[in-house]
Amino acid sequence: MLQRLRSVVRILAATSAALYAVLPCLAADPLPSWKDGASKKRIVEFVERVTRQGGRDYVAPQDRIAVFDNDGTLWSEQPVYAQGAFVVDRLRAMAPSHPEWKSTQPFQALLEGDLKTVAASGETGLVELVMATHAGMTTEEFAAVARQWLESARHPKTGRPYTEMVYQPMLELLTYLRSNGFETYIVSGGGIEFVRAFAEPVYGIPPQNVVGTSIKTRYEVRDGNPVIVRLAEVEFVDDKAGKPVGIHRFLGKRPIAAFGNSDGDFEMLEWTTAGPGPSFAMIVHHDDAEREYAYDRESHVGKLARGLDEAPKRGWTVVSIKDDWRTIFPPPRK
Amino acid sequence: MLQRLRSVVRILAATSAALYAVLPCLAADPLPSWKDGASKKRIVEFVERVTRQGGRDYVAPQDRIAVFDNDGTLWSEQPVYAQGAFVVDRLRAMAPSHPEWKSTQPFQALLEGDLKTVAASGETGLVELVMATHAGMTTEEFAAVARQWLESARHPKTGRPYTEMVYQPMLELLTYLRSNGFETYIVSGGGIEFVRAFAEPVYGIPPQNVVGTSIKTRYEVRDGNPVIVRLAEVEFVDDKAGKPVGIHRFLGKRPIAAFGNSDGDFEMLEWTTAGPGPSFAMIVHHDDAEREYAYDRESHVGKLARGLDEAPKRGWTVVSIKDDWRTIFPPPRK
Repeated sequence: MLQRLRSVVRILAATSAALYAVLPCLAADPLPSWKDGASKKRIVEFVERVTRQGGRDYVAPQDRIAVFDNDGTLWSEQPVYAQGAFVVDRLRAMAPSHPEWKSTQPFQALLEGDLKTVAASGETGLVELVMATHAGMTTEEFAAVARQWLESARHPKTGRPYTEMVYQPMLELLTYLRSNGFETYIVSGGGIEFVRAFAEPVYGIPPQNVVGTSIKTRYEVRDGNPVIVRLAEVEFVDDKAGKPVGIHRFLGKRPIAAFGNSDGDFEMLEWTTAGPGPSFAMIVHHDDAEREYAYDRESHVGKLARGLDEAPKRGWTVVSIKDDWRTIFPPPRK
Repeated sequence: MLQRLRSVVRILAATSAALYAVLPCLAADPLPSWKDGASKKRIVEFVERVTRQGGRDYVAPQDRIAVFDNDGTLWSEQPVYAQGAFVVDRLRAMAPSHPEWKSTQPFQALLEGDLKTVAASGETGLVELVMATHAGMTTEEFAAVARQWLESARHPKTGRPYTEMVYQPMLELLTYLRSNGFETYIVSGGGIEFVRAFAEPVYGIPPQNVVGTSIKTRYEVRDGNPVIVRLAEVEFVDDKAGKPVGIHRFLGKRPIAAFGNSDGDFEMLEWTTAGPGPSFAMIVHHDDAEREYAYDRESHVGKLARGLDEAPKRGWTVVSIKDDWRTIFPPPRK
């Protein structure tokens, strides 16, 4: 009986598999927000090349690792990083319980809107502001605060939630890669716990697939209740040459596809494309002032110069938002 | 045509799924090396409880995270940690190119087999020995050295490769959990890159599912070739209170099942079982001097005292190797 059941299952499974293999050819375009140009063609060609069973460039599913920068690659980073807006909003919300901030820099300047003085406080000042809003609480408290902010905060230009300032073509790309057996990761210069607060509902990327900048933490048992406390000390900066380091630490293997938008992603793309097998690197070029923003070489946020210069000779694909993307943002949620 | 194809696929898929759902009931015992006692019963009951669709304790697959200590939980840690044997063998192999070690402590003592002097060098001395063998090379070079050693080294008591000194009941448990939708992770006090060198072929655990102690690394481009260089500086100690910290850093979520064997795993089990939903914690108690080793409260390796004392009141399952395991090691590979 068991033997017969097994045979039946085998036959059914084999038939279904064959039909599923045929269906994609008949199915709708998986990247409808991408115009039919060179960029889209290169993406699709790469995916078909590494998934073709028996092909010379076939890559086993467990090695189909794709890494994505977040700010400027998956969602908008202008006019300021979302996490920067979070810091400002949090400081304002916390100010009533911190009367000392009224006469302490850089807090005073920030609360008074004097961004020149804030900027003059340099990295030390900025780290102080970040720590005041990110440390001194448990990981669960921080996650709750971040999620709450993400629900209520609005982008200054569009008035939409930051979680809707994501790029529809990139959402389609994430889904397309995953449906082709890729594992998708975020490798962000932003705070790892901040990104984890929205990555799963927004991108379908679970917390364990997020690599980012982090502060130290400590395990503590408070009245019999274990907590992990966030400390005011930088642990790791996941930017520039830190990106391949972060990828290696978390994944222990080299990606075969990398997607970024600024020179902070250069080393990640360089590391990915230096692997022994087939690989793919893509830079999102913000050149659409009308529908999003236009910035590159001179920008204070998301500066892109070396990437633009070297992409052609390295075989990296530069995506023009203006020319390659039919739509930028998803339709508003009801 | 497409519509009809889709209907056919749906019917086939539904039928297969139904048959697959029935098959496990007819299938063989997934834990044949576990004797039918209380420990096995508790494992199976937990898994059935969290996977029962519609049940009160149902846990969605993405939250079925199980974490495993390695030394003493998945493979033997006596008479010394495998990684300790690796350090000694590597130092001996490297000694000819380091004539200065003949007159430098603790290298001299180690090469002369004077373990008392090595021990007297304390943590500083041990870190020096570890760094001499683990740092100063690229991540790819280290992985190759570790894999080579794992292939050639033999356990001092059994003469078997260390990768065969793994516990057959635990291999079955890993497979059983994964076949029930769990994601399995190693959370080891051992070096993350050392464990990654064998975790996938031996346990079916890919590199990205390994958390461990780490040293700092740096990204470098050497003659146009990017490498990640291992530095002689401890980055993170993934032991005791470091285990929940490491888990949170890498996974960003709390496991629902944790498996350990020593007090180095206490906080990991504590953190896991403090979660809001159903959880499971298990301690492997080494009480089988005949078939493996017997050690707990007084052991220099894998000390287990607090875990034994508190397991009953915390509801943690203590597994007796002697009474619960039918077999300890898998049959030798051909």
